[in-house]
Amino acid sequence: MSKGKVCLAYSGGLDTSVILAWLLEQGYEVVAFLANIGQEEDFEAAEKKALAIGATKFVCVDVRKEFVEDVCFPAIQANAVYENVYLLGTSLARPVIAQAQIKVAEEEGCFAVSHGCTGKGNDQVRFELSFYALKPDVKVIAPWRDPEFFNRFAGRKDLLEYAAEKNIEVTQTKAKPWSTDENLAHISFEAGILEDPDTTPPKDMWKLTVDPTDAPDKPEEFQVVFEKGLPTKLVLDGGKKTITDPVELFLEANALARRNGVGRIDIVENRFIGIKSRGCYETPGLTILRSTHIDIEGLTLDREVRALRDQFVTPSYSKILYNGMYFTPEGEYVRSMIEPSQKTVNGVVRASCYKGSLSILGRSSDTSKLYDATESSMDELTGFSPEDTTGFIAIQAIRIKKYGEAVRDEGKTLSL
Amino acid sequence: MSKGKVCLAYSGGLDTSVILAWLLEQGYEVVAFLANIGQEEDFEAAEKKALAIGATKFVCVDVRKEFVEDVCFPAIQANAVYENVYLLGTSLARPVIAQAQIKVAEEEGCFAVSHGCTGKGNDQVRFELSFYALKPDVKVIAPWRDPEFFNRFAGRKDLLEYAAEKNIEVTQTKAKPWSTDENLAHISFEAGILEDPDTTPPKDMWKLTVDPTDAPDKPEEFQVVFEKGLPTKLVLDGGKKTITDPVELFLEANALARRNGVGRIDIVENRFIGIKSRGCYETPGLTILRSTHIDIEGLTLDREVRALRDQFVTPSYSKILYNGMYFTPEGEYVRSMIEPSQKTVNGVVRASCYKGSLSILGRSSDTSKLYDATESSMDELTGFSPEDTTGFIAIQAIRIKKYGEAVRDEGKTLSL
Amino acid sequence: MSKGKVCLAYSGGLDTSVILAWLLEQGYEVVAFLANIGQEEDFEAAEKKALAIGATKFVCVDVRKEFVEDVCFPAIQANAVYENVYLLGTSLARPVIAQAQIKVAEEEGCFAVSHGCTGKGNDQVRFELSFYALKPDVKVIAPWRDPEFFNRFAGRKDLLEYAAEKNIEVTQTKAKPWSTDENLAHISFEAGILEDPDTTPPKDMWKLTVDPTDAPDKPEEFQVVFEKGLPTKLVLDGGKKTITDPVELFLEANALARRNGVGRIDIVENRFIGIKSRGCYETPGLTILRSTHIDIEGLTLDREVRALRDQFVTPSYSKILYNGMYFTPEGEYVRSMIEPSQKTVNGVVRASCYKGSLSILGRSSDTSKLYDATESSMDELTGFSPEDTTGFIAIQAIRIKKYGEAVRDEGKTLSL
Amino acid sequence: MSKGKVCLAYSGGLDTSVILAWLLEQGYEVVAFLANIGQEEDFEAAEKKALAIGATKFVCVDVRKEFVEDVCFPAIQANAVYENVYLLGTSLARPVIAQAQIKVAEEEGCFAVSHGCTGKGNDQVRFELSFYALKPDVKVIAPWRDPEFFNRFAGRKDLLEYAAEKNIEVTQTKAKPWSTDENLAHISFEAGILEDPDTTPPKDMWKLTVDPTDAPDKPEEFQVVFEKGLPTKLVLDGGKKTITDPVELFLEANALARRNGVGRIDIVENRFIGIKSRGCYETPGLTILRSTHIDIEGLTLDREVRALRDQFVTPSYSKILYNGMYFTPEGEYVRSMIEPSQKTVNGVVRASCYKGSLSILGRSSDTSKLYDATESSMDELTGFSPEDTTGFIAIQAIRIKKYGEAVRDEGKTLSL
Repeated sequence: MSKGKVCLAYSGGLDTSVILAWLLEQGYEVVAFLANIGQEEDFEAAEKKALAIGATKFVCVDVRKEFVEDVCFPAIQANAVYENVYLLGTSLARPVIAQAQIKVAEEEGCFAVSHGCTGKGNDQVRFELSFYALKPDVKVIAPWRDPEFFNRFAGRKDLLEYAAEKNIEVTQTKAKPWSTDENLAHISFEAGILEDPDTTPPKDMWKLTVDPTDAPDKPEEFQVVFEKGLPTKLVLDGGKKTITDPVELFLEANALARRNGVGRIDIVENRFIGIKSRGCYETPGLTILRSTHIDIEGLTLDREVRALRDQFVTPSYSKILYNGMYFTPEGEYVRSMIEPSQKTVNGVVRASCYKGSLSILGRSSDTSKLYDATESSMDELTGFSPEDTTGFIAIQAIRIKKYGEAVRDEGKTLSL
Repeated sequence: MSKGKVCLAYSGGLDTSVILAWLLEQGYEVVAFLANIGQEEDFEAAEKKALAIGATKFVCVDVRKEFVEDVCFPAIQANAVYENVYLLGTSLARPVIAQAQIKVAEEEGCFAVSHGCTGKGNDQVRFELSFYALKPDVKVIAPWRDPEFFNRFAGRKDLLEYAAEKNIEVTQTKAKPWSTDENLAHISFEAGILEDPDTTPPKDMWKLTVDPTDAPDKPEEFQVVFEKGLPTKLVLDGGKKTITDPVELFLEANALARRNGVGRIDIVENRFIGIKSRGCYETPGLTILRSTHIDIEGLTLDREVRALRDQFVTPSYSKILYNGMYFTPEGEYVRSMIEPSQKTVNGVVRASCYKGSLSILGRSSDTSKLYDATESSMDELTGFSPEDTTGFIAIQAIRIKKYGEAVRDEGKTLSL
Repeated sequence: MSKGKVCLAYSGGLDTSVILAWLLEQGYEVVAFLANIGQEEDFEAAEKKALAIGATKFVCVDVRKEFVEDVCFPAIQANAVYENVYLLGTSLARPVIAQAQIKVAEEEGCFAVSHGCTGKGNDQVRFELSFYALKPDVKVIAPWRDPEFFNRFAGRKDLLEYAAEKNIEVTQTKAKPWSTDENLAHISFEAGILEDPDTTPPKDMWKLTVDPTDAPDKPEEFQVVFEKGLPTKLVLDGGKKTITDPVELFLEANALARRNGVGRIDIVENRFIGIKSRGCYETPGLTILRSTHIDIEGLTLDREVRALRDQFVTPSYSKILYNGMYFTPEGEYVRSMIEPSQKTVNGVVRASCYKGSLSILGRSSDTSKLYDATESSMDELTGFSPEDTTGFIAIQAIRIKKYGEAVRDEGKTLSL
Repeated sequence: MSKGKVCLAYSGGLDTSVILAWLLEQGYEVVAFLANIGQEEDFEAAEKKALAIGATKFVCVDVRKEFVEDVCFPAIQANAVYENVYLLGTSLARPVIAQAQIKVAEEEGCFAVSHGCTGKGNDQVRFELSFYALKPDVKVIAPWRDPEFFNRFAGRKDLLEYAAEKNIEVTQTKAKPWSTDENLAHISFEAGILEDPDTTPPKDMWKLTVDPTDAPDKPEEFQVVFEKGLPTKLVLDGGKKTITDPVELFLEANALARRNGVGRIDIVENRFIGIKSRGCYETPGLTILRSTHIDIEGLTLDREVRALRDQFVTPSYSKILYNGMYFTPEGEYVRSMIEPSQKTVNGVVRASCYKGSLSILGRSSDTSKLYDATESSMDELTGFSPEDTTGFIAIQAIRIKKYGEAVRDEGKTLSL
């Protein structure tokens, strides 16, 4: 008799295939779940393989639209970034996949969900915290944290032997000396040879973006239109091509950045599990959309709203995303702070990509009058009394003169 | 009889020459002061001109060393940046110049200092707040905020006429349609045609950096060595060239970035005086040093120290610098938080510049053991019990399950 | 011919009576405006006096309801407090009064508004920034900053002489050696003998609250019910008295605190105009409502939401209120963060007042299940695996052991 | 043969006596460790009992001085407080005890340390994270998280039976229906009947402080002198009694507060282990010292330094303390921010205690000139130009008028 139904996040790869077989061996019935979140994948082959191994059912869910509209776009509005450089490509995908997996688990009557994440990474946390929020009574089976499993499969050899034993087909392509995770927004590379943080990734590791040295010899200009901080239009080819559908726009931004070598990063980051790890990432379209979004905020967002958002919302939300806390009270709370910051963020940014770099060329806004060329002008005094600044400085100086006097009174001298 | 001695920040240009003559006309004696902070300038011509107009004395002070060591380097340690992109090149220079000017004023027995800053900009605030802290009893003469002056000199034509009248030599080169301010760290461009934020700067405006499209066709590799967060070595030419002197290192970083087109930005920013303004900047060396510093922190800085520094110190210090609050209690206080964050930031970053972009190639540290390849490795379990993560997640989940349950109890469904 | 109509904030006191006469003398027509914001005041006498002096019209607006519901209640939800102790009683009133004054100004066709605030205080800023936001083209006449006025009326004697000359009736009661400002939420005392921060206020200065030594000898118990963070019910007299109307509830909380001597504070605070000043305040009801609100949050608010709100929203909003930035983009933005933090803040707090102190006696919530006595219990293990904590600690320890090792490697010893 | 030596934190109570016997039963040799941190305890009886049960050695370490000087005093300087009300009495003690225990463990050649903390509380985390930082290779034995132990001793009855079996003497006094933890700074009460957060603690639970209703009928005045933010003198009895030794001063502050019923709190707080729990605390002296410290900062601390410290340092350090992160990189980092904030915090605060409440009566400072009565005075214009404020407001209004105009342009009306 079955010990019950488990919904397994299945990729078609060696690890989750072995897990699938092992779960069956443990007496579970298994529903194989695969999310289409924009990764390059042979979904049909995965289905065939899952069923061949013994899954009761294979369910593939297309979550690309939710991923772009519900998660990536708000991240752009919030200028989300972790530790100054990482655009959170993997973190953004996790809650979307988890939500789809829990939905399948509930529809298929599964009491448990399972995944192939390792015990040292961030993704196990991101998935499981999402699972528990979405379905607090769900049971999670994490084989790579189960001694029975990880002691039995101590190395790749053990996995291969088990696969052979269970007639699991293994792709003959040689395993790459790193791991990847891909979605519509990015691809990550880690582990293997990258574990030495001083090893420069080989040129052929990078997958989504062309090497900057191989990119076109001419800057490619484009425009992004923002409404309330959301990218609503991408204009290419000197105005000949205009995209407005969110997913299409995101894909086109990807294509634009990819062909111009834009969006690569290489960092050592701090995992939620207190370990440092090295990651290389390609995040083409998101890089373009986030940078142009930051630019349009310069023109259209009030200084103090921006400062508050920058100091509170951006880092808080980025940490929440990174640590897998999307479906939490604080996740919900901080997300509620994004939209109210974006009311005035309307306008067009003109920019160009060229051999790995992104340049802003100009920006304009029909609705925002926060920027006022006359007022800003150094040559104009219309509507501005320079004497006001004298008062402004004098009031600021009250406190500062006291400071200078106190230093003098102590017989000291202020210096750089 | 003289109304007393004034120390005027004198550049040799039309504005400050007119101010010099005007101050004399008002009955002041004038000491012309000029700081050499690395700008491209004909210091001898300026001296000759100041004396010709009638300055009692001309004093030029070389502040390049203080600028690099006391101000730019701590800014690198703090990753200082204003509104996400501006590296504060002008802001960094102001306290250095102000300190030198006050020193000259005191040495020369001046009761007042004067400058040619306009009434709408940040620089008047930065200079004057520094003046008041360093010498609380100083008097500041700001002609561009004095109605008697600004009403008389309403346009360039008035200035030219007055110059002619006073026999002030005016360079025949046509005025550029923008203003610039230059120092060792950067050059700024603003005003004039740039006041339309949608006008792309003409290619020939950029001065310090080569246009990315004209930069060499091959990436140029280099290394930066950091000790306690300070750049202590720059290695070029495949190891053939090594620079350690701070000013030399900074200049060489400039040269490296300049020839590869690295360090341009174009933004609309929020001035302290609540006006938005458009600025274009070239900050070549600082861009390289700051980016490599951020990278080495990934390898060598504790996660929580970094998070605290990122959320509190970096934005606070950047705002302090931007608003001209260098010599203030809070400036001193926040500066005291920089060094303690950098104790472990030792290591080497390898990177390359190429046609406007900067890429990190790898990094290493002899002293920091925070990164541990074995521990980080996805293939190793040495010293790590995956079951611990189960407990870690379970404890995190207590609060989150309650959240999920509360949502369910209300008959709602959590979703993206 | 009139120079136009001015709407003057008129209190009936000597200062604003002189200002009223002086404005008339300057050729303005004056509409006298008085807000009833709960202060003890003879509104009829004020009206009579204003008209006698020569005001075209006297308009008194009752703003108590808006004050309590729109401003005080959200401040309770946000736990607003300035510099650890000041509950912002004056600051809260300013935007309410300003809004009413601008409304009257618009209805009466006034081109300008005027007030009697001094040039060193916070209130001038609070009023005027609100005026400019609500009616950007309004003109503000601030006599105490107009040299023509403040040079003429250099002391109280000058005001009295002018009053006599203009037949302005002056109350014969001797002026108190301090100034006060009162509204429904509080009274402030400052200036005069209080300007020595080491002078203990005389017992008879305090007006709203009984001296703690004279308060009843028995603690008085009461209950406050909160819904979404708002006080919705106040229960007194052992359940015999229940108040639900917001204004009534606020007044009853005042009465309760007043008779028990609760709500006095005495501080030196930092004004927006960079001057330190000493203030004594009585804020009876608000003290009770804020403290019980903080208590119910312990039971009903998620830890991380609370932490984010405490670190970002409370101090930001308090500073915004103090500095008179209610009607600003950031005021609107931060206010939008209050309600989403209060969704779960439902419950009852039982407390008591006694001779100046407030004690919490217990609290409960029908709806919140965040507190779970079984889970919390030290004697129960239901639903809790202590081994999980081992994992939790182990994961936290990864980073910390590294720190300990690094210190040892340097030959140092960690110590307190 | 012994499995090695364990250093057990031993209190003499039932739990740790059973643990001691059980550790011996498991084959360990046990060194019993007891810290004298100011709790009321029969240290000799504990020693006798430990040795009777079979401890190899009993070591009692007096850590009161370190506790006061190294931990409590900096917490006062930082105004540390958790979730608005909890003064962290228990948290402050943990690193002090842990450091002493590790020292004993090292001196006595123990490979492991053990404690009697439960698996749901904060203290296990605080102790163990400190252990791991101080001695990264230490082994921790936590019986209440070991299934072998906690399954065997499921209730108090099991403990008593085992005690009887092992001839462990058990005090005949009836166990109180709550748990306590005491040190020089405070006592905590939790668990038992307090687990219902709506149960008012019985009057006889409170131990350190007299019930406010039983406190003297006259306010007791006193003075606290601060130097660089540290309490250096406590003056009582109208100046007849002056204490300067830190420990003595702290004890005297305790006595003062205790006899006047000052320092009780009752809250529901959020544990680090994501559980809410109810705690009642008495923190007499610390309440007085922290409140007077906050007051003297009003007079002597720069506004912006205070604001930065309040927003960053106080909450960060409080959270670090609460979560047991004292010996961490971030603990060290944030601690380094305390002293630089206190340079100018010198002066005397006069205050009084009365039946549970604390009132500030006045304050003065010989050295700080930040407060300037003349400048602050509403009746004086010496050294102040009211027109400056006009300019100050005008500059602040630039941004705000734009906001008001934008709202009008949209056809909306700003309102409360």
